[in-house]
Amino acid sequence: MTAPRPTPPHLTSLVASLPATVPFVGPETQERARGRRFAARLGANESVFGPSPRAIEAMAAAARDVWMYGDPENHDLRAALAAHHGTTPAHVMVGEGIDGLLGYLVRMLIAPGDAVVTSDGAYPTFNFHVAGFGGALYKVPYHGNHEDPGALLARAAETGARLLYIANPDNPMGSHHPATTLERMVERLPEGCLMVLDEAYVELAPEGTAPRIAPEDPRVIRMRTFSKGYGMAGARVGYAIGAAPLIAAFDRVRNHFGMGRIAQAGALAALQDQGWLAAVQAQVAAARDGLAAIARQNGLVPLPSATNFVTMDCGAEGRLARAVLAGLIARDIFVRMPFVAPHDRCIRVSCGTPADLAAFEAALPDALAEAQAALR
Amino acid sequence: MTAPRPTPPHLTSLVASLPATVPFVGPETQERARGRRFAARLGANESVFGPSPRAIEAMAAAARDVWMYGDPENHDLRAALAAHHGTTPAHVMVGEGIDGLLGYLVRMLIAPGDAVVTSDGAYPTFNFHVAGFGGALYKVPYHGNHEDPGALLARAAETGARLLYIANPDNPMGSHHPATTLERMVERLPEGCLMVLDEAYVELAPEGTAPRIAPEDPRVIRMRTFSKGYGMAGARVGYAIGAAPLIAAFDRVRNHFGMGRIAQAGALAALQDQGWLAAVQAQVAAARDGLAAIARQNGLVPLPSATNFVTMDCGAEGRLARAVLAGLIARDIFVRMPFVAPHDRCIRVSCGTPADLAAFEAALPDALAEAQAALR
Repeated sequence: MTAPRPTPPHLTSLVASLPATVPFVGPETQERARGRRFAARLGANESVFGPSPRAIEAMAAAARDVWMYGDPENHDLRAALAAHHGTTPAHVMVGEGIDGLLGYLVRMLIAPGDAVVTSDGAYPTFNFHVAGFGGALYKVPYHGNHEDPGALLARAAETGARLLYIANPDNPMGSHHPATTLERMVERLPEGCLMVLDEAYVELAPEGTAPRIAPEDPRVIRMRTFSKGYGMAGARVGYAIGAAPLIAAFDRVRNHFGMGRIAQAGALAALQDQGWLAAVQAQVAAARDGLAAIARQNGLVPLPSATNFVTMDCGAEGRLARAVLAGLIARDIFVRMPFVAPHDRCIRVSCGTPADLAAFEAALPDALAEAQAALR
Repeated sequence: MTAPRPTPPHLTSLVASLPATVPFVGPETQERARGRRFAARLGANESVFGPSPRAIEAMAAAARDVWMYGDPENHDLRAALAAHHGTTPAHVMVGEGIDGLLGYLVRMLIAPGDAVVTSDGAYPTFNFHVAGFGGALYKVPYHGNHEDPGALLARAAETGARLLYIANPDNPMGSHHPATTLERMVERLPEGCLMVLDEAYVELAPEGTAPRIAPEDPRVIRMRTFSKGYGMAGARVGYAIGAAPLIAAFDRVRNHFGMGRIAQAGALAALQDQGWLAAVQAQVAAARDGLAAIARQNGLVPLPSATNFVTMDCGAEGRLARAVLAGLIARDIFVRMPFVAPHDRCIRVSCGTPADLAAFEAALPDALAEAQAALR
């Protein structure tokens, strides 16, 4: 046994400067801390309606072939995605979830000190990547419950931003802008600024939410995922659509064999079952209505949602929403809430099955009463 | 439809300087170019013997739950790995294959210009990551068919290297050093230099190959994988064992939800079926003997192998081995070969089933004769 000596390797100054925190704590971590499982898993905007049975079957079949590396070009999946979006595989990159793709993208475009613009309270994992590569992150406030296109564009121009992040529909508020708003944003982007359009929830939004942007438009990269509408969060498959030179540049930095064989097979089968997606869209719409009704019954204000979750305004400052959240978790309902004010007046509840909604409905009145009593 | 304007985003100067090439071309790419499948897939050191049936079953079961994100802490798998190695989960990090973990590690430790030492002809994906973060890569020659511990250490001291990469057993030569050689290397590491010990093939090596290194020793990080002995290359599960502070630092940069639910479940089940691993070890040993015999029948020299492949010396310069490789591929046998001289006098053949070996045995004489005729 060699004897340890105190010569720890030094982290780079950039990595040493990063916080040791992580963007999200998983529900399993909470379950281990609590010593018991959640009764309803409504916090991570997963799709309890599940993936297409054809995707499950394709993944089970691929599991038998898992001794082989997955195709590093993700050829079949990219070809199918290109056909689905009316473009070519040269405009499509597949990666380890939108999270993985955002990390690669930031690495490709952001050197230490480069400016990046986002909304205050928008996706923390994007911010994690920007910090991770030393970017200077500028945040603009939401306008009410919507990300603010004008403020984002103005800040990008002011700071000479190289990236402008916007999610449409938005998380955590569930709001959306119509396609035309996004299309106008693209026209007003400052020179040299790339718009990162995160469309993780777009399959669940009203018709007319996805802007018409030519895949070869060098001003925009759009991010899509199989984690939400397609119900495959645990398979980690995201994809980007963008100009061919930008898409090709991912090959300079990505983990080429990072997409497993099972994930590729599952995503391909899921894409080919648009009937399942349509059924999920209907279930999500019904669950949104159900969640909104429960919110109203309890005096909370459900915000309009273009996603698979409903953000509920508890009508007071963050302390109340945090207490409600704690009360729900104590009652075995896993939910989350926006991180920053003024949105932290809300809780965020993912769409669930009728049983999930019944569990939430049963827990909410007591959680709310307890929170109100504690803060009185 | 918005009209594209010519304002492509600029890559960072570092990423712009990187070549657009990728470390490995997958067999599927070759199959698409050829217009037909390979008859034997013996080029990527995959395990044709497959994963444990329990792992396949666990993955199929996990596919049904894939609507849930995987646990970002990889808690159960890390706990099982820690128990397996007699350490604690704080010393174990799970990631998207050794490739993914190497990328994170280089990012954590290598700033532009920092020195890194490896062997000339060793793992290209490690070099890809070093280049990708601007490291200065120094390569030392092999000593015969072995990586050269003395030369690696000397070069690390000379250059003030922050990382020293060594694979034991080695790829592409299949050679290995005994544990004591590695243990002595650790004692002689220059201050502030971390040894990256890639043990991808160690489950297939003779007893006594894995050095005894305390997990908390800050001078070493060891990399293991489920891709080789455990037969799960397509699931992308690697892990690192190292000092707790270094392991914790991965959380500053990694894709926290990058490990899918199916991959985690499969790896856990595979680890728990050590009987299957033992059976694979026996099959690999038999296949090595079979491949060596075929090599000798054809006048090639099989190098001793501590891995799941046999490197065969064709006895001339690289041109001959490249021609033999081309001849095998033309005969539907997927194999690879070392990239650099003098190792490019060899071809590298992965262990296969008896049917795979028969296909190789049938194809080799003609491939060899054709190559020799063409070079005469």
